[in-house]
This record gives sequence, C-alpha cells and structure tokens, in this order.
Amino acid sequence: MSCPFCFPETDREQSIVLSNEYCLFVQKPQEVLIGSGLIVPKMQRETAFELTTDEWQASFELLQQVKELLDKEYAPQGYNLGWNCGDIGGQEIFHAHIHVIPRFEDEPLAGKGIRYWLKQSSNQRSLR
Amino acid sequence: MSCPFCFPETDREQSIVLSNEYCLFVQKPQEVLIGSGLIVPKMQRETAFELTTDEWQASFELLQQVKELLDKEYAPQGYNLGWNCGDIGGQEIFHAHIHVIPRFEDEPLAGKGIRYWLKQSSNQRSLR
Repeated sequence: MSCPFCFPETDREQSIVLSNEYCLFVQKPQEVLIGSGLIVPKMQRETAFELTTDEWQASFELLQQVKELLDKEYAPQGYNLGWNCGDIGGQEIFHAHIHVIPRFEDEPLAGKGIRYWLKQSSNQRSLR
Repeated sequence: MSCPFCFPETDREQSIVLSNEYCLFVQKPQEVLIGSGLIVPKMQRETAFELTTDEWQASFELLQQVKELLDKEYAPQGYNLGWNCGDIGGQEIFHAHIHVIPRFEDEPLAGKGIRYWLKQSSNQRSLR
C-alpha cells in the first residue's frame, strides 16, 4: 500500500483541507474524535525529529490556520497536539504527522490529557 | 503558588537540564515515565498556539538536543511529543509545555500512542 501522506489522493476517505508550501492538513471521517486531523510534511520524513527547519516552521503556520478553521466549525474547548514517534510510541504510518485533536467538555474523557494513561503505575516498565 | 515554569527555581524537585535563548528543558523525578520532561518557553505563553515564531523554532532546536541526551541516558525505542491545550484537553499548568516522553518496549503499554484511549467509543461525545 502506498503511503497516504506521500500520495494523499490514493486514500479516498481522506480530504486535504488546508495546505501551505511544505505541509498539508488532512482529515478523515471520525467516529469519535470529531474534527481531528493531521498536519503532515509534503516530503516523507519518518518522525518529527527529521523535519527540516522550514517544515517545522510551516507546521506552526498551518497549525494556526487549522485552529481557526476547527474553532469555527466545531467550537472545541481544548486541543491535544502531538506526534507518536516509532512503533513503540504508537506510530502506525512512518511519515511524520501531528495529531490535531479538538477536545470537548461533553466527552466522557474531558480533562484527560495525552499522558494520563501512560503515566499510571500499570505502565511501569518490567525490565528495570 | 507561583508558576513552576516562570520561576523554575521555586520547584525544588525540578531540574533545568538544557536551555537555549527562548526555551528550557526541565525534568522531575518520575515514578513511571522515566526520562520524561518538558520543553517550556522562558516567557509565559498559555498554550502552544500562543508561542512566537522564535519560541517555536527554539523549541525544535532544543528538542533535538533533548533527544540526543535522552537517547544516550535512557536508550528508548520511541517517543511521544505533544501539548495538552486547555483544561478540557488535560492541561494543568497554564504555561505552555511540550511533553517529551521516551517510550520503551518493556512498558505494558508499549505501542499505544497519544490517541489510543481518546479515540475509543467509550469517549464518544454525549451532546451531539
């Protein structure tokens, strides 16, 4: 299967919603995380750490436009923003992508952030 | 209580591990997420969206140094990077901070990313 961020048109469920010189913002229909989407560099970079300075900067510029759009369309009360890096970190597509997740006060998990589950003692490492 | 990122020296558990012109990387002793820490702008900005261009850029430069350090000290197999924005998004201190979370193959939750819990149907919004 071709990379859905290198070849965004191959994923028919995916829409390119915004873009600039170096980055795209793509969305797919979501069952749960309504309004969420991804900021991806147009060029393939494996993780956030491999982005160029231009791509990092362009990601921020696009993020501001994405927020403006999502605020208008969905009026969330908060956001989570972030990257999973490496399969152990939960990355599934090895073309870097910022998850942009609008958060809502009527979610059962409202108020829980990206570390909430990971930091619990049930996630303590076994081999220390 | 004063802001631990505006006045990092007031939190005795917290160490300033790395810094550059605009940002700090701070760590505290962790029970579970060993090696994790925060990249914060020296100036108070409420969320990631309010960072200046210089702060955004400096965050990336510091992130590269942080990765180099954490790779050497902890040798993780992955990372999660991200911001919680707003209390509904799980933000607890209203001075923007990137969570830098090394991830390890011997964690019970290895392979689970920052969206794993949030995207489950148990987090479906009630008021749609």
